[in-house]
Amino acid sequence: MPQHRTESDSIGSVDLPVSCYYGIQTERARRNFPITGVPLAEFPSIIVALAMVKSAAAKANAEIGGIDSAKAQAIVEVCDEIVQGQHHDHFVVDMIQGGAGTSTNMNANEVIANLALGNLGHAPGEYAHLHPNDDVNHGQSTNDVYPTAIRLAVLFHAAPLSQALERLQSALEERAEAFAGVAKVGRTQLQDAVPMSLGAEFKSFAVTVGEDIDRIREVGSLLTEINLGGTAIGTRVNAEAGYDKRAVAHLSGLSGFDLKQASDLIEASSDLGGFVTFSGILKRVAVKLSKMCNDLRLLSSGPRAGFGEIILPAVQAGSSIMPGKVNPVIPEVVNQVCYQVIGNDLTITMAAEAGQLQLNAMEPVVAYNLLKSLKIMINAVDVLTEKCVTGIRADAGRCAALLDNSLVLATALAPHLGYDAAAKIAKQALATGRSIREVASESSLLSAEQLDQILSPAAMLAQGITQEVEVT
Amino acid sequence: MPQHRTESDSIGSVDLPVSCYYGIQTERARRNFPITGVPLAEFPSIIVALAMVKSAAAKANAEIGGIDSAKAQAIVEVCDEIVQGQHHDHFVVDMIQGGAGTSTNMNANEVIANLALGNLGHAPGEYAHLHPNDDVNHGQSTNDVYPTAIRLAVLFHAAPLSQALERLQSALEERAEAFAGVAKVGRTQLQDAVPMSLGAEFKSFAVTVGEDIDRIREVGSLLTEINLGGTAIGTRVNAEAGYDKRAVAHLSGLSGFDLKQASDLIEASSDLGGFVTFSGILKRVAVKLSKMCNDLRLLSSGPRAGFGEIILPAVQAGSSIMPGKVNPVIPEVVNQVCYQVIGNDLTITMAAEAGQLQLNAMEPVVAYNLLKSLKIMINAVDVLTEKCVTGIRADAGRCAALLDNSLVLATALAPHLGYDAAAKIAKQALATGRSIREVASESSLLSAEQLDQILSPAAMLAQGITQEVEVT
Amino acid sequence: MPQHRTESDSIGSVDLPVSCYYGIQTERARRNFPITGVPLAEFPSIIVALAMVKSAAAKANAEIGGIDSAKAQAIVEVCDEIVQGQHHDHFVVDMIQGGAGTSTNMNANEVIANLALGNLGHAPGEYAHLHPNDDVNHGQSTNDVYPTAIRLAVLFHAAPLSQALERLQSALEERAEAFAGVAKVGRTQLQDAVPMSLGAEFKSFAVTVGEDIDRIREVGSLLTEINLGGTAIGTRVNAEAGYDKRAVAHLSGLSGFDLKQASDLIEASSDLGGFVTFSGILKRVAVKLSKMCNDLRLLSSGPRAGFGEIILPAVQAGSSIMPGKVNPVIPEVVNQVCYQVIGNDLTITMAAEAGQLQLNAMEPVVAYNLLKSLKIMINAVDVLTEKCVTGIRADAGRCAALLDNSLVLATALAPHLGYDAAAKIAKQALATGRSIREVASESSLLSAEQLDQILSPAAMLAQGITQEVEVT
Amino acid sequence: MPQHRTESDSIGSVDLPVSCYYGIQTERARRNFPITGVPLAEFPSIIVALAMVKSAAAKANAEIGGIDSAKAQAIVEVCDEIVQGQHHDHFVVDMIQGGAGTSTNMNANEVIANLALGNLGHAPGEYAHLHPNDDVNHGQSTNDVYPTAIRLAVLFHAAPLSQALERLQSALEERAEAFAGVAKVGRTQLQDAVPMSLGAEFKSFAVTVGEDIDRIREVGSLLTEINLGGTAIGTRVNAEAGYDKRAVAHLSGLSGFDLKQASDLIEASSDLGGFVTFSGILKRVAVKLSKMCNDLRLLSSGPRAGFGEIILPAVQAGSSIMPGKVNPVIPEVVNQVCYQVIGNDLTITMAAEAGQLQLNAMEPVVAYNLLKSLKIMINAVDVLTEKCVTGIRADAGRCAALLDNSLVLATALAPHLGYDAAAKIAKQALATGRSIREVASESSLLSAEQLDQILSPAAMLAQGITQEVEVT
Repeated sequence: MPQHRTESDSIGSVDLPVSCYYGIQTERARRNFPITGVPLAEFPSIIVALAMVKSAAAKANAEIGGIDSAKAQAIVEVCDEIVQGQHHDHFVVDMIQGGAGTSTNMNANEVIANLALGNLGHAPGEYAHLHPNDDVNHGQSTNDVYPTAIRLAVLFHAAPLSQALERLQSALEERAEAFAGVAKVGRTQLQDAVPMSLGAEFKSFAVTVGEDIDRIREVGSLLTEINLGGTAIGTRVNAEAGYDKRAVAHLSGLSGFDLKQASDLIEASSDLGGFVTFSGILKRVAVKLSKMCNDLRLLSSGPRAGFGEIILPAVQAGSSIMPGKVNPVIPEVVNQVCYQVIGNDLTITMAAEAGQLQLNAMEPVVAYNLLKSLKIMINAVDVLTEKCVTGIRADAGRCAALLDNSLVLATALAPHLGYDAAAKIAKQALATGRSIREVASESSLLSAEQLDQILSPAAMLAQGITQEVEVT
Repeated sequence: MPQHRTESDSIGSVDLPVSCYYGIQTERARRNFPITGVPLAEFPSIIVALAMVKSAAAKANAEIGGIDSAKAQAIVEVCDEIVQGQHHDHFVVDMIQGGAGTSTNMNANEVIANLALGNLGHAPGEYAHLHPNDDVNHGQSTNDVYPTAIRLAVLFHAAPLSQALERLQSALEERAEAFAGVAKVGRTQLQDAVPMSLGAEFKSFAVTVGEDIDRIREVGSLLTEINLGGTAIGTRVNAEAGYDKRAVAHLSGLSGFDLKQASDLIEASSDLGGFVTFSGILKRVAVKLSKMCNDLRLLSSGPRAGFGEIILPAVQAGSSIMPGKVNPVIPEVVNQVCYQVIGNDLTITMAAEAGQLQLNAMEPVVAYNLLKSLKIMINAVDVLTEKCVTGIRADAGRCAALLDNSLVLATALAPHLGYDAAAKIAKQALATGRSIREVASESSLLSAEQLDQILSPAAMLAQGITQEVEVT
Repeated sequence: MPQHRTESDSIGSVDLPVSCYYGIQTERARRNFPITGVPLAEFPSIIVALAMVKSAAAKANAEIGGIDSAKAQAIVEVCDEIVQGQHHDHFVVDMIQGGAGTSTNMNANEVIANLALGNLGHAPGEYAHLHPNDDVNHGQSTNDVYPTAIRLAVLFHAAPLSQALERLQSALEERAEAFAGVAKVGRTQLQDAVPMSLGAEFKSFAVTVGEDIDRIREVGSLLTEINLGGTAIGTRVNAEAGYDKRAVAHLSGLSGFDLKQASDLIEASSDLGGFVTFSGILKRVAVKLSKMCNDLRLLSSGPRAGFGEIILPAVQAGSSIMPGKVNPVIPEVVNQVCYQVIGNDLTITMAAEAGQLQLNAMEPVVAYNLLKSLKIMINAVDVLTEKCVTGIRADAGRCAALLDNSLVLATALAPHLGYDAAAKIAKQALATGRSIREVASESSLLSAEQLDQILSPAAMLAQGITQEVEVT
Repeated sequence: MPQHRTESDSIGSVDLPVSCYYGIQTERARRNFPITGVPLAEFPSIIVALAMVKSAAAKANAEIGGIDSAKAQAIVEVCDEIVQGQHHDHFVVDMIQGGAGTSTNMNANEVIANLALGNLGHAPGEYAHLHPNDDVNHGQSTNDVYPTAIRLAVLFHAAPLSQALERLQSALEERAEAFAGVAKVGRTQLQDAVPMSLGAEFKSFAVTVGEDIDRIREVGSLLTEINLGGTAIGTRVNAEAGYDKRAVAHLSGLSGFDLKQASDLIEASSDLGGFVTFSGILKRVAVKLSKMCNDLRLLSSGPRAGFGEIILPAVQAGSSIMPGKVNPVIPEVVNQVCYQVIGNDLTITMAAEAGQLQLNAMEPVVAYNLLKSLKIMINAVDVLTEKCVTGIRADAGRCAALLDNSLVLATALAPHLGYDAAAKIAKQALATGRSIREVASESSLLSAEQLDQILSPAAMLAQGITQEVEVT
């Protein structure tokens, strides 16, 4: 019994192990692109998306007579198995590949064909019975299949990201409530500004995360517009009439997303605007998450010689040489993920700009970076929620001590004394190491009763709350 | 008569020319930030936005008794003049400045105060009668005034950008109609692919521009959420009850935008998410516009040894040494603007990430880059429309010759012969320098009639059109 | 016999499989950082570098009595095995990790300790006999060990990158010689400019690659300055006198690089300037390589409706739907690698900027991106050389036909007729579809003999060569 | 007397004011590129560099008989005046322009021609006597003139940047000496680590600046390799034999730089590697400067509720609402400049990657960004030195108090008790609010004398110093 089978294409022929489920085009691509060492198999969402596309196409083709029902049935069954998670290890092409995704599409076409051939009682490579191009890829081109599959793959991760952010938002809100009564110094430009509550600070984190979730949802909807049915460069060439709407409908059913065909298929074939925009929103999330983690690290700095207003959960020893040191490792890892996502966005930006004429040949690196960003962002958000935010404690005593010792009450004097006089009092307090109250009291501009009323953090904190109620 | 007046603050005193309309804080800032040499005066939209904010605040303060009506009236009158374009040359602080916009806000406060003092019969600097901080800035902080003004300034440019893009879109559509009958080679990965029309190519440009317009409108609405009324870090400290809602309403009236106060003013004080998202959309526009300009330059390459399918208007001589050379200088300048906008987006991204605790001190560089990007993008789009797109001509003969000589009809054989047999014919045609028809004809797999029917660009072009009609 | 052992630290205790070679700190880190799924084990150069550092430290410590010789000997032996490539699978911490590399250092400390304990006849975890911190990490801190190991790891890849680029340079030079006699149109701004040879075009590619090699060598030398011996923040705390110079010397011996201790260890602990600069050079290489690949794709565009001056080797079928189509997949994959390297550089830039006070906690993401960039760049360069450049063929006939048909000879008229007259001739030739010679001849400004002499590509090509010889 | 003159080119004719010193090509460019509103005149270094190039070319051409001596003399005289700073206002083309710099070159050619014509007694536009292309541009192309001029312009700013950084380095060193005796907490990952001196912290800033100066010098030398003499695409076409070496020599003399002609002029015509590398070094400087400014802002945070270890000079009032607030506005503005420089670097990177075939048409935006980055970086460094660093004061009392209250002495116990026991003591101290000494003393593991010897910041600080001396 032979150990190898030989497959041929217009370039020549290649020997493959007899039971290999991918074929000559995949094998050539495997050899041509030894770049990252990361095969498609490490990104199951692409594989599942491709299988759904192939299944939808087969169903549509069968309905309009493009391919016969038995072949379609065999293709659909194999695709179902792939969607279930079987066969992923046959997807061997490198994630960074030339050819605008053709090798990814052909990897799917060949694997599906050979698996289907097996189910139909044929050996791998007996393509006369079911052909990777003529049957599995019937009425399709990489130009429409690949962008459609990548859109689906991204959508598969969008909801999990939103959910991860919702969990983070809830954890922050829960902390905000717990810290509502902790008065502290609010700071602008790292300088003591006015009193606020630690609860309000955490509330603002929660609100900012909530806004990101809204943006992800909005932008996700851009990706439900697909170019399936456009075939080569959006001309619909070689697709039978009636195929495309049916294929899109089947794909909606299989994926659970409400997919729409793009209005201009030529434009949709080369345009990566949706990916650029989606990545831009991930960059926005990264920017804001990184800022929050910077704040968490700053507020927990110390334990003795820093701000020390909050205490992060200790999750591991912090140093190989400094015993007892504990570091804010969770926010730190999230910061790094954010920088990675921002760098990935640049890669996507440059790749998108490099499209030429009727196609963007750089789509594989866009897909790779977008999916990597989604994966690490989801992981980072979950780690931040579970291993850090939920366990944050306030050092209310420290917050109060810093507030009492601060000069932030000077602002409350301004409406009563004017900005210039209040500034003089603040300057004198700083220079002499005394409190605003002491210096203001000495100035005899306000009575002790007035100062009592004006100069308490509680009074200042109350201002905002009272007014908010009143003006509604 | 004295030539100078002396102003003082908590740091010391400074001499100013007696008729100088800005005061000590502006003067200090002018000296502290000799960075770009670009003063606020070069960005009138910021100045106008600030004047509207100050006017709205004065009106609201007068209504609730925060400042007396005469002062408010004087402030409002000066602000009206500034909105009309007067007094801009008194805005002298550098666009890149430390202090989170305080110097910009104080430049406005001081200029408005001194102009109003003049109108009230006082000399500049006689702040006992009307004070930059206590009156013009009453109930305000840079923390709320500056982000609000920047949002307004960006919004002032958003509609002109959309309109410029609409003009570009129309010009592209007009060209698309003119070129509808020009058949040509469609290309993927710079390789001849399948027939298409030049009209469809230009239509896809128009469509892609149209999508950008939609995105700009969506994102613009994010910027109508403002934090005016939050004062220092969003606490509402020192603003009288009832002030904030009135101020926002007056500002809506003055600006013509439907502004809303942010739900969480603490969050809104430090968050630059709206700017990051808006800049991200400008980046998207840049990516797509750059791709289009790359295409225009490629399609017009030649005039003899390139693609030569289209002819751009000649707008200037192309070389100091090569007589008669004409270059695609308009698309080239647009490409460069796009790279600038993408670089500016990175500056904005890093500045946004650098926010700390209750404020982002880096807002001035964000404002500077966002407004620069808007300005040059609008200019570039208009130049592209007027000096290039509207005058593009097709070389229909060249398009036809390239198409006739190409092998792009091989794809039409695949449904009839199968992918593998069609590939062999294509390979042989390429190797022997003959046409697909000749080689296919020789193969005797299809009759001459069949070949006639299958192998015409018109037939392939018709496929998409027919089907599109049918499946609707 | 127990299946688990229990290890404790100041945070608590953790159960580990009894034969697990890493310990509690590694296990905590493994759980804390489920981010990329890419463990240290996928980057052997880091592991080898760490083992060399630990070996060098053990030798130095033994010499000065910091740890006893038997322990040192056991550590050195294990490190030798790791350098040989054994035990890599025990390095399990995620490449993106919080903690500034502490988890990586502790993963090494624990694995080396437990392997050494085994060799000494003890069970894993019996640290009383040989301790991860007190012995393997003796006189060290993550602050000095980790940056030193990352520098070494980068250096391990620098020479292979230079060698890959040298192979590419040679292949380009070889092609340049082969194409020396192929005259063609030189183009600026995609417009036909003046004649040149295809050989000169490929020679310029070779030269540009050569310059990159020089830059890599220069910048590589920056990384031979290490901070080993600085321990915590560069204070040398807890390292015995005499240790540091010995450790650096041993590490030079082990690694083969001429390493120097940084002159200011405090500065060297937090500074990532060397990495930023090295990555900046990789970005430069990417920019230039991407430009070259763009050119290769453009020059090979066609096969019929493009430039078609060169023919790239066909390495795989180009389309799932268009039979016979062959794409420039190798340059395409290199372009994508270049965009990835440029994106990674941004991640490195932002991480480097995020250093605070005496350390940069973001070093792990810097290491990850720098090593990824090196890996994919080396792979891409080799693929480009082997699967593309060496097999490029010229279509000399096409080059000649384009040149003959072009107007690029107009420039040669300018010295004889003046720029303005020559420009008129060029314009007329273009407008009428005739050649420069025809129109010039008609103008009677120059005789037929003069035109013969001036207007040949050979004459223009000869200009540069002759002059170059003469002026030397 | 006519108010206008008419000039013509191959595109048509244009009316110009009769005394206008620029001509038709400049005027067309002025109209074609209304992009940034920033004319060449705002970048005198480009204008001076161009004038030097034109002067050097005229001298070389005169020597070899390319143009006659009288014309050359007239050109040289005008160029001298331009180098002196006259006539800059005639350079009106926008800094972002299409055409690869042709418009900049022609602006120079036309202005020089018309000024020279005036000196020779002719009216502007009488080019028969001295022609912008045939004489001023004799033997030149924008392809070699423009890149050469940009390299010179960058070099003009390189030394001032190095000098500004040297002043900063000196100021930092001076502060380092002043703070040498101030013991403080060293911090890693914002957590208290080990003792250090404030002097060592400032010394590390000085050292890091010094390294940047070295890098700028190294990279500057890359820019002394110029392509003057290459003319169109590096072919030397239309330049007389012997011209190029003479032109380069004259330019060296005029500029004071030791310029060399590139070995491969074809490569040098399109390659922007030198600019990318130079900008990459500016990015490195920005990264490190930004980190330093972040540290200055953090160390001066407070004045009461922050780190408060240093006090920055108060240079302006910090708030429009919070009286007495003073902000770190100088480091803030430097941070923003750094983000701008990093963004500009991305623009340069993308523009460099966009080169095609024998030229990079995007050079103008590269020149613009590189020169802008240099300008603002020099300004920012000077402001940082003069208005911040030189006036920084230490709060030695605060530093000492934080150090005394900290747990950073735990590390000193590790060599005596082992890491694990020391970690327990540190944890207990933190939990109970006591000092390391108290807890260690209780544990009875070390005598009071031993603790005295081990547990003093002075002892820990001395370690590094002693050892450094010993091992030399």
